[in-house]
Amino acid sequence: MANERISRIPAGSQDLVAGDVRRRRHVQAEWFRLAEARGYEEVIPPTFEYEEVFTLGAGPDLASRLLRFVDHDGRLVALRADFTSSIARIAATRLAAAPLPLRLCYAGKVYRQSVEGGAQRREVFQLGAELIGEAGPEGDVELLRLMMDTLRALDIHDFQVNLGEIQYIEPLLRCLEPGVAELAREAIDRKDRAALRGIGSRQDLPSGVATALEELPQLIGRREVLDRAAMLAPCADTRGAVDRLLRIDDLLSEAERDLVVYDLGEIRGLGYYTGIRFELFVAGVGRAVGSGGRYDELLSLYGLDRPAVGFALETDLLAELLVGREG
Amino acid sequence: MANERISRIPAGSQDLVAGDVRRRRHVQAEWFRLAEARGYEEVIPPTFEYEEVFTLGAGPDLASRLLRFVDHDGRLVALRADFTSSIARIAATRLAAAPLPLRLCYAGKVYRQSVEGGAQRREVFQLGAELIGEAGPEGDVELLRLMMDTLRALDIHDFQVNLGEIQYIEPLLRCLEPGVAELAREAIDRKDRAALRGIGSRQDLPSGVATALEELPQLIGRREVLDRAAMLAPCADTRGAVDRLLRIDDLLSEAERDLVVYDLGEIRGLGYYTGIRFELFVAGVGRAVGSGGRYDELLSLYGLDRPAVGFALETDLLAELLVGREG
Repeated sequence: MANERISRIPAGSQDLVAGDVRRRRHVQAEWFRLAEARGYEEVIPPTFEYEEVFTLGAGPDLASRLLRFVDHDGRLVALRADFTSSIARIAATRLAAAPLPLRLCYAGKVYRQSVEGGAQRREVFQLGAELIGEAGPEGDVELLRLMMDTLRALDIHDFQVNLGEIQYIEPLLRCLEPGVAELAREAIDRKDRAALRGIGSRQDLPSGVATALEELPQLIGRREVLDRAAMLAPCADTRGAVDRLLRIDDLLSEAERDLVVYDLGEIRGLGYYTGIRFELFVAGVGRAVGSGGRYDELLSLYGLDRPAVGFALETDLLAELLVGREG
Repeated sequence: MANERISRIPAGSQDLVAGDVRRRRHVQAEWFRLAEARGYEEVIPPTFEYEEVFTLGAGPDLASRLLRFVDHDGRLVALRADFTSSIARIAATRLAAAPLPLRLCYAGKVYRQSVEGGAQRREVFQLGAELIGEAGPEGDVELLRLMMDTLRALDIHDFQVNLGEIQYIEPLLRCLEPGVAELAREAIDRKDRAALRGIGSRQDLPSGVATALEELPQLIGRREVLDRAAMLAPCADTRGAVDRLLRIDDLLSEAERDLVVYDLGEIRGLGYYTGIRFELFVAGVGRAVGSGGRYDELLSLYGLDRPAVGFALETDLLAELLVGREG
């Protein structure tokens, strides 16, 4: 009676048993313990939503990776691909009248098609938090601190936060023609200084913009990088972005500052980020274990104008880091 | 910028916040605490699986309520509609070599289309357990006890378990032509004694079968019902089913016995049940808060022949029972 067709699971899906479950539960329990102690309340969005919830804010990269289906009313829905988008919707609708700031947290699965038919998981566990209604750098630091303390609560200490500010790059890119700006974006992502120099020299740019663009791949480091970036800043907008990072640096403790590397060329991530943008790297893990940033315009898509900042951690990667550590 | 289309969620979906989340978390935490103390290990199946996982064992009622979509390999997948089917698959494949009995538990969402476009939730939280590789009535009682103790752990005491045995009814139905058997099934479900008398008299049935059929709607009560059912049993199979229930009754404690009502006419539920079958009712709740039974043939669909018994509770209903009780 064996049925080969149904004894398998779809590619990229997970059957979790034994230690794999226990480690994820441990990570989630520590997370909620910490988040609740800081005033963050769990929310649980639906597993599937109208696809526009995930396409309008997060942009084309995520839109191309949705697991979609036609719901019985004929509309396209998608499995939750991003908690932040769903929670922004909840904050702008059901929680619109709640006192600010809103502190919300979550843990659960997100679903994304693997790129180019790759063998990656299509369902992964994430956990994270969103701070809504707090526009200042104090909010940025509250979130960064919560993220770093989550790692510490899991007894993970050898990690680094790469922190950038979209507003340092966007004014530079706005000086370029759209097609060239896209090339520049890719060059920034590759940290390709030669390509950026070429772009800067071919266009008729203010010299300060060309220099700042060319130096972007080098603007990685501690506070001295912010001082250099401030010197290079060709306009008030870029200068404001550096000031923001300087204020964040001031607000961090010395121990926290040791874990932060400023990276002005950091641009990866979902389309809704408008301010700080960060990725978390843990020693020995080949990709980011977490990421986040400020998204001050996302909630307005759902009808309410509120500043917000948040982060997400990859629960599966954190759980794998705990292998062998169980007491 | 408000977007009416995306500020709503699909019909039957849930945005859970605040107390709704806390109560569900409390129910799940109590559940896992109890289940783990009894040796049950959590498993987490994928959120979507090949649709056959849910159609082959559970039958046409569930099959008609799946939320399906075409996966990128062209095969139909369905959102998890039933934990038992997924866990039977895991037990028969990934855990095939694990020592028996297997004690597995879970908590999470199942997804089912509402019937006739009704306004019911299409995503509901369930929790439950499966005991695999234990064929005897001791296994049935272990599961019943775990279910009853879960309610007690949540400080819910005014409940009742309606317990039947499919093997009491199936031999009777096998005496009927298929079309008539279906009519009889519906009449049993309605507890319609007159219809059953009609069916019994129209067919050329052994008189014992006709009498047992007609009395089914009355066979509800405590142990004396089992004695009456034993007297009525027209063949060895039906007699065996009553013996099974009598042994279960012997194994229950006096306090547990007070919570159990035998109902030989109990036939509702998914298609894979082969033995005992039960539903849990809580005072003041208009529908079953939980259900379960023995499914000794389900695992063989996935390639491994193992007896098994399990139950599922409706986490959402349990959480609603806790409203106003928070300390």
